[in-house]
Amino acid sequence: MSDQHIVSAFDRDLEGIQAHVMKMGGLVEAAIVDASQSLLNQDEELSAEVIKRDQAIDDLDTLINEECANLIALRAPAAVDLRVVLSVMKIAGNLERIGDYAKNMAKRNAVLVHMTPIEGARGALQRMAREVQLMLKDVLDAFIERDLDKAQDVLERDRDVDQMYNALFREFLTFMMEDPRHITPCMHLHFIAKNTERMGDHVTSIAEQVIYLVSGSLPEENRPKATRYEAE
Amino acid sequence: MSDQHIVSAFDRDLEGIQAHVMKMGGLVEAAIVDASQSLLNQDEELSAEVIKRDQAIDDLDTLINEECANLIALRAPAAVDLRVVLSVMKIAGNLERIGDYAKNMAKRNAVLVHMTPIEGARGALQRMAREVQLMLKDVLDAFIERDLDKAQDVLERDRDVDQMYNALFREFLTFMMEDPRHITPCMHLHFIAKNTERMGDHVTSIAEQVIYLVSGSLPEENRPKATRYEAE
Repeated sequence: MSDQHIVSAFDRDLEGIQAHVMKMGGLVEAAIVDASQSLLNQDEELSAEVIKRDQAIDDLDTLINEECANLIALRAPAAVDLRVVLSVMKIAGNLERIGDYAKNMAKRNAVLVHMTPIEGARGALQRMAREVQLMLKDVLDAFIERDLDKAQDVLERDRDVDQMYNALFREFLTFMMEDPRHITPCMHLHFIAKNTERMGDHVTSIAEQVIYLVSGSLPEENRPKATRYEAE
Repeated sequence: MSDQHIVSAFDRDLEGIQAHVMKMGGLVEAAIVDASQSLLNQDEELSAEVIKRDQAIDDLDTLINEECANLIALRAPAAVDLRVVLSVMKIAGNLERIGDYAKNMAKRNAVLVHMTPIEGARGALQRMAREVQLMLKDVLDAFIERDLDKAQDVLERDRDVDQMYNALFREFLTFMMEDPRHITPCMHLHFIAKNTERMGDHVTSIAEQVIYLVSGSLPEENRPKATRYEAE
């Protein structure tokens, strides 16, 4: 009876923390959408808003970390439950990084509005950001539903993002060689493309945590090499 | 008496884990040195070695994570001790990322050896990598010695790395505008510069964890804005 009580107290606490993770995820999704939108429309007001809103994401990360530490200290969870709590901390860390990338995307807008526009690049960047945002949405669903297949699917979709990035990289090189005035704006656009690709890597990292949560092992073996999460 | 016994068991376990963190740190330091050396001397054999050695760094990260989870599960540490264990996990995560950046630096060597050399850039990159490696060495000392001042000093030195990066960025732009044949090699060299700057950010992140460990609070307030850790 007493054991039963302790278990459900852990679950109740964990549910509260997970609600914060989902809230954080929603804010990060909005940041990606608005940052790429501000870039497409050269909307400096919207990019300023994205930059300002990043604080709320950082605050949630701090809160979730504290809640997880308290949960561990108070409930002394058993091995399986502890794994969940540690994964939640890592997921919050990944979300915080994605939020930073979105903020940095919005920051570049202030520089880019004064430069030679590069035909088509902003549209391609927005499609890439859109794909990452959808992957993030799906991986958060996979997390809440403890859905292994959905998490696996997100892992595989990261390859598309990598391909979009590679295509853009080659395009930027061509633009720069055509006209030296394209060099500086392309360097900035390339930053954005690379950071969007990195957002995808962090979404992949969340997918791996979900797989670890559900199956108890990281997907090292059966994962295609190209989607392995690596800082680059 | 029994309490005393439990406390020292925790400390003994923690010491073992910290020894693994220091070993991991040593491997990461060597990876930075050798990756930048391989670049300077166009030494493909050395870069292949750096790439191969990254597995040992990743394995230590996995091991440390497992050891920390086991320590929490077995010893149910009190709040202060728990903070140490969670910080150690974060530090290992940062080291793993720095290792990835060093590996990626080494990977670019294979591409760069076939390109027009950019006068002076490799030397500047090596100085930047050297500074990051020294910061890493000092922050690991600060971690083991729980030395607040030393950690604070590392935080401040990250500004120098940022300045080195900014100077290189401007230099690359100039090179690219001078001669279109410089565009592709400069894009690759710029990657390396940016990744080295990011290594510095992760070292900063470790310094923040050390400050948190020793003082109980993150250095949000008194930290110069320029050195705040942000993904970019």
